[in-house]
Amino acid sequence: MIILGIDPGLATVGWGVLESSRGAVRPIAFGAITTPAHTDIEARLLMIERDLTEIINKYHPDEMAVEELFFNTNITTGIAVAEARGVILLTAHRCGVKISEYTPLQVKQAVVGYGKAEKRQVIAMVTSILKLREPPRPDDTADAIAIAICHSRSSSSVMGKYFNKR
Amino acid sequence: MIILGIDPGLATVGWGVLESSRGAVRPIAFGAITTPAHTDIEARLLMIERDLTEIINKYHPDEMAVEELFFNTNITTGIAVAEARGVILLTAHRCGVKISEYTPLQVKQAVVGYGKAEKRQVIAMVTSILKLREPPRPDDTADAIAIAICHSRSSSSVMGKYFNKR
Repeated sequence: MIILGIDPGLATVGWGVLESSRGAVRPIAFGAITTPAHTDIEARLLMIERDLTEIINKYHPDEMAVEELFFNTNITTGIAVAEARGVILLTAHRCGVKISEYTPLQVKQAVVGYGKAEKRQVIAMVTSILKLREPPRPDDTADAIAIAICHSRSSSSVMGKYFNKR
Repeated sequence: MIILGIDPGLATVGWGVLESSRGAVRPIAFGAITTPAHTDIEARLLMIERDLTEIINKYHPDEMAVEELFFNTNITTGIAVAEARGVILLTAHRCGVKISEYTPLQVKQAVVGYGKAEKRQVIAMVTSILKLREPPRPDDTADAIAIAICHSRSSSSVMGKYFNKR
């Protein structure tokens, strides 16, 4: 199964495509969609839609895993991230890609084995699991891969019944 | 100028199309896009995109005015509204419709003349300005028309320089 992991954002959308087979994962491609600051949000959303469509058409993921949003301190940034996330969900659905959502806690639990793991631990585990020479950059890309790994583990084991909301 | 006012939401997107000429407005059409509860958000976002595209293709608005988001009590609802709003901005931009944003305070100020006006006052003024026999239903539709009226007034007067963010 080909899994596309997405870390949603307006300035940066991290993405990672993995092949998952019997619990093992191997990286196919990963990167980040970036949009320029000081540009109207609608133009940035259109860039995200176009780049994501291109990624889906190129790698043909069977499923997309995306992080659920939680708003903490910065509500203004949170609104922009949610607007971008809406466009990401729309684009994947229009392309026929099945969508699953995970909380940050579920992702950390699945990747590090500890729900309160720090970001650097997640990045180190992602690098190790995919046998990469160096950590994926930017962090959004590492996060996106972590979400894809979480999905591969939850959908290939009993964990899926507990984890997967749908 | 044809103005499309939008009150964003996931369950209900209020919309109103007005013709604005030298400060006077007349209603062309208005209504609400509704999406079913207990349905995946991505499917609901796709319904909003399709219905909004249909409205734009039918009435050919020159400009769209949409309310800015503020998160108050219900963050979970707020995230869903922002996700829908992202899809609305994307759709309008893809259709070549220029977008303006207004705060609730600006809308009330422009329509009622008082930034802290109550919802029923806004609805009464919308009904009166458009010379309607009864208030537009649901309230989201009345709100959308109020946003369109706000845009017609801000873009046809000196207020525009103060109001219009773009």
